[in-house]
Amino acid sequence: MFYRVNMATLAVSKDDGAQYQGLGGRALSSRIVSAEVDPQAHPLGASNKLVFVTGLLSGTGAPNAGRMSLGAKSPLTGTIKESNVGGAMGNKLGRLGIRGIIVEDLPAKDTAYVLKVSAAGLVVEEMPELKGLDIYDTVAKLQQKYGEKVAIGCIGTAGENKMASACVGFTDMEGAPTRQAGRGGLGAVMGSKSVKAIIADDAGTQMVPFADEAAFRAGTKKLANALLTHPVTSQGLPTYGTDVLVNILSEAGGLPTRNFSSGRFEGANNIGGETLNATAKERGGKTGHACSPGCIIRCSNIYKDKKGEVLTGGLEYESCWSLGADIGVDNLDDIAVMNRLCDDIGVDTIEMGVTLGVAMEGGVASFGDGKAAIELIKEVGKATPLGRILGGGAELTGKTYGVRRVPTVKGQAIPAYDPRAVKGVGVTYATTTMGADHTAGYSVTANILSVGGKVDPLKPEGQVDLSRNLQIATAFLDSTGLCLFVAFAVLDIPEALDGIVEMCNARFGWNKTAGDYLEMGKQVLRDERAFNAGAGIGAGDDDLPEFFRKEPLPPHNTVFDIPKKDLDTVFNF
Amino acid sequence: MFYRVNMATLAVSKDDGAQYQGLGGRALSSRIVSAEVDPQAHPLGASNKLVFVTGLLSGTGAPNAGRMSLGAKSPLTGTIKESNVGGAMGNKLGRLGIRGIIVEDLPAKDTAYVLKVSAAGLVVEEMPELKGLDIYDTVAKLQQKYGEKVAIGCIGTAGENKMASACVGFTDMEGAPTRQAGRGGLGAVMGSKSVKAIIADDAGTQMVPFADEAAFRAGTKKLANALLTHPVTSQGLPTYGTDVLVNILSEAGGLPTRNFSSGRFEGANNIGGETLNATAKERGGKTGHACSPGCIIRCSNIYKDKKGEVLTGGLEYESCWSLGADIGVDNLDDIAVMNRLCDDIGVDTIEMGVTLGVAMEGGVASFGDGKAAIELIKEVGKATPLGRILGGGAELTGKTYGVRRVPTVKGQAIPAYDPRAVKGVGVTYATTTMGADHTAGYSVTANILSVGGKVDPLKPEGQVDLSRNLQIATAFLDSTGLCLFVAFAVLDIPEALDGIVEMCNARFGWNKTAGDYLEMGKQVLRDERAFNAGAGIGAGDDDLPEFFRKEPLPPHNTVFDIPKKDLDTVFNF
Repeated sequence: MFYRVNMATLAVSKDDGAQYQGLGGRALSSRIVSAEVDPQAHPLGASNKLVFVTGLLSGTGAPNAGRMSLGAKSPLTGTIKESNVGGAMGNKLGRLGIRGIIVEDLPAKDTAYVLKVSAAGLVVEEMPELKGLDIYDTVAKLQQKYGEKVAIGCIGTAGENKMASACVGFTDMEGAPTRQAGRGGLGAVMGSKSVKAIIADDAGTQMVPFADEAAFRAGTKKLANALLTHPVTSQGLPTYGTDVLVNILSEAGGLPTRNFSSGRFEGANNIGGETLNATAKERGGKTGHACSPGCIIRCSNIYKDKKGEVLTGGLEYESCWSLGADIGVDNLDDIAVMNRLCDDIGVDTIEMGVTLGVAMEGGVASFGDGKAAIELIKEVGKATPLGRILGGGAELTGKTYGVRRVPTVKGQAIPAYDPRAVKGVGVTYATTTMGADHTAGYSVTANILSVGGKVDPLKPEGQVDLSRNLQIATAFLDSTGLCLFVAFAVLDIPEALDGIVEMCNARFGWNKTAGDYLEMGKQVLRDERAFNAGAGIGAGDDDLPEFFRKEPLPPHNTVFDIPKKDLDTVFNF
Repeated sequence: MFYRVNMATLAVSKDDGAQYQGLGGRALSSRIVSAEVDPQAHPLGASNKLVFVTGLLSGTGAPNAGRMSLGAKSPLTGTIKESNVGGAMGNKLGRLGIRGIIVEDLPAKDTAYVLKVSAAGLVVEEMPELKGLDIYDTVAKLQQKYGEKVAIGCIGTAGENKMASACVGFTDMEGAPTRQAGRGGLGAVMGSKSVKAIIADDAGTQMVPFADEAAFRAGTKKLANALLTHPVTSQGLPTYGTDVLVNILSEAGGLPTRNFSSGRFEGANNIGGETLNATAKERGGKTGHACSPGCIIRCSNIYKDKKGEVLTGGLEYESCWSLGADIGVDNLDDIAVMNRLCDDIGVDTIEMGVTLGVAMEGGVASFGDGKAAIELIKEVGKATPLGRILGGGAELTGKTYGVRRVPTVKGQAIPAYDPRAVKGVGVTYATTTMGADHTAGYSVTANILSVGGKVDPLKPEGQVDLSRNLQIATAFLDSTGLCLFVAFAVLDIPEALDGIVEMCNARFGWNKTAGDYLEMGKQVLRDERAFNAGAGIGAGDDDLPEFFRKEPLPPHNTVFDIPKKDLDTVFNF
């Protein structure tokens, strides 16, 4: 079932989306955007659409199937964008039988609308009192009105102000807005349509039906067993969370430090997962926290301040890196304050940290000055000229301050793995349809973690094949509603993929092979590339900024040396 | 003779540039940039080069042959850029036998360098006392040191601050810096290399030699006769200057008003050439002023304030429009103050006016508030965060403020002819290698001025052919050092082109046909497009912003309706 909401007329319609048969998650969001949005559309204009879709396995209770996808043309990159998020909503939308909500056009009125979906249907409510509120306050007001059991996705002032790094914050299972559809500025698209929040109430619903329930359960068991067996998903992530990567990457010389000028951070241990874990325990916070229903990895956390008050949650590796090593800050409390501010104002932490690094290189503040960084993020919340610059992201900030070393691809900040020391992920950054995005083809697996084989991270050999295969597989996984972290198990334990295939087949009565599902992944990439080509973004944009090819990265003193012509073979299918 | 200056080592070398045989002006600058600059280079980085070149006819004394070209990869557009400028320098460089000065690499030191070229050679001088000075003060200091006869090109604080709309200001024949290599932010490239100024002293030089002086004189006579016969070049431009176009375009419904929301400005007459002319006369200023040696059109002016003090010069149509109609200002004195500020800080007036229009649409100030606009430009000079946003140009400002209606192509502001009502120039904006640039294929000729035939400006028919032919011819004219305004005569009087062909041939002992020279124009465009393709900018970027296709423009209520597939045939050669 699909809902369409026209923000100009506030009309809501419902259809079965026959043209989108067989698609879910990213496959669905990218197909809708590429079929319905003019690639030349202004991302904040009437022609862009914002879509919220569920995955193939949403609402099934499958392990780690709590994710959903948002899609639109991105104001940050100008490309098509799928932004994937955990939390409570994906499962509820799935249970409600909703495959997609498509938000169209622009409102006549400058106000705040809430889209509320329940078993009774979708209604648009005007709540001007939400205008100008940050995310935590917005959630509190909505929970007052609708109860604490609803799932909420909403924007803060960054989204209202149409800043290109604005995210959409989603509530977790405890109702805290700790999960973000972070990348690509989809919060600004939501803001352009004056949609302040979307709410899902699944009261009275049941689990989705299955074509073959027994076969589904068998598949579930295979995936669950694999997740509970693989050392990354059964031990590393539950114990230390994603932030365990700080020390690993710093040791590997691939932790971008002070705006990508070193691959090793002397303060790594202060901000890594081991310290985070110890601090969380000491203060009565939590690690091993599940962000969405059905999660059996539980890599999230709740972080309290020195007084024992909850400060933030979902403090991930990417944020500890971007708001830490990348700006030379080694104080976890400063990072937690920044993370909370970003989640509250509603900006992507990766983009914000990288932006601060670029701003520091441009002389706006000093590397290592966490207090100054906190004040800069507050400027974003106040939407001062400086705050608007920073809220516009790293590329805009670099251009504004005439900075040469700006780590972006297609306008999106490069995440937490330096492509000179983790070359497989460098291939992904350079070529993915999304702008720099580690999750689009997470070659860190074979490069650093010895998952799915080993490919020397410092050498060019094998990286293109590695990235290509991961980009295809990821495009499929992103279509299921499964958390990307199931990939760790999939890459090493054959039964994991079997289980996923069996679940998808059993859910819908299909008889597809793993090859068929990988073909779905390829088709996602083809759809996305076709859209991007229409937007003027093609192979000529598939490269890293010049300095990665010219400036050796300590401590290994390597450059990114995968020839452009090899990058151009990533999409050879 | 070519000079190469390496800013890292401060070494100067000299060669005959055999590889660039037979090229001048834009053909030369674009060939050098496309041959020597990596299209993936950061525009402000060591790999970009800034080139100053003379045209085929520079230093010959040919009529209106005083222009020169600057080239580089543009920080504004990311494309190749040729920025063409009048004033005193082109002729002096020509007389000095200089075909090109190629500035390479980045300096080790943050200081201000001056490149001084004379019959004795090129020397690099360090003048830290120039750092932080605006253009008028820089010129005054340099004239104190080097005398008033030298020609000067220099940057202001905008260039030093590497703002993407920074221009390079050049002195006119009276030594006032009223001429700008305005578009594409080449002032920021100059700033990145810490080159504050370039100075040409042609003392002791003679006119360049000719292969056949008699034939050259004959050619000269043909062109001069044509220029003195054609009504535009012999009457319209000398009497009223370029600003005569304000009323013409407003009448035609193609004068972009208040950020391109109307094609007619109720205050047009207050800011048009007729008023400018009367005011200049009344206050003892000047119209019919020649900006460069050998100019027989004399379309420039000197504008005084109410007290009779010189306020600004070279107050052109584009500036009166951008700092006037486009921001709803109908006060010529306010416009003159803004023009002076832009010339002094060193930012392109077209980009700045369009930027102010976008900022006004974003709520930064009100349309029509000239005093507020003046203060905003002062922010650019102070390089406050707001000033840096505005100095970054219209696209950056639009992105920063989440504005949907941003009139740019490939990141460069659209000039003074609305493409919905002057569709031929719309084709040029959409397709030229330079980002939106009216001078790249000035279809206003046949669309509005009935020069070179008539093509209905409101209809799609014939515009692609018109723009293509003009883009080719212009690429050649820009290679000669001739002012583009000779094109008015060329389009209507066959002897004008004959004269140009004869002069070029007689200068070098060539035996080329007009067809050969047009082939040179085609090759310029091929070189430029190859560079752009390497930079990831191709046919997918050859279009106008969405709103020109969707939002009808009063008073004709037309949209830009030339199909994208037709735009893609512009470069079918």
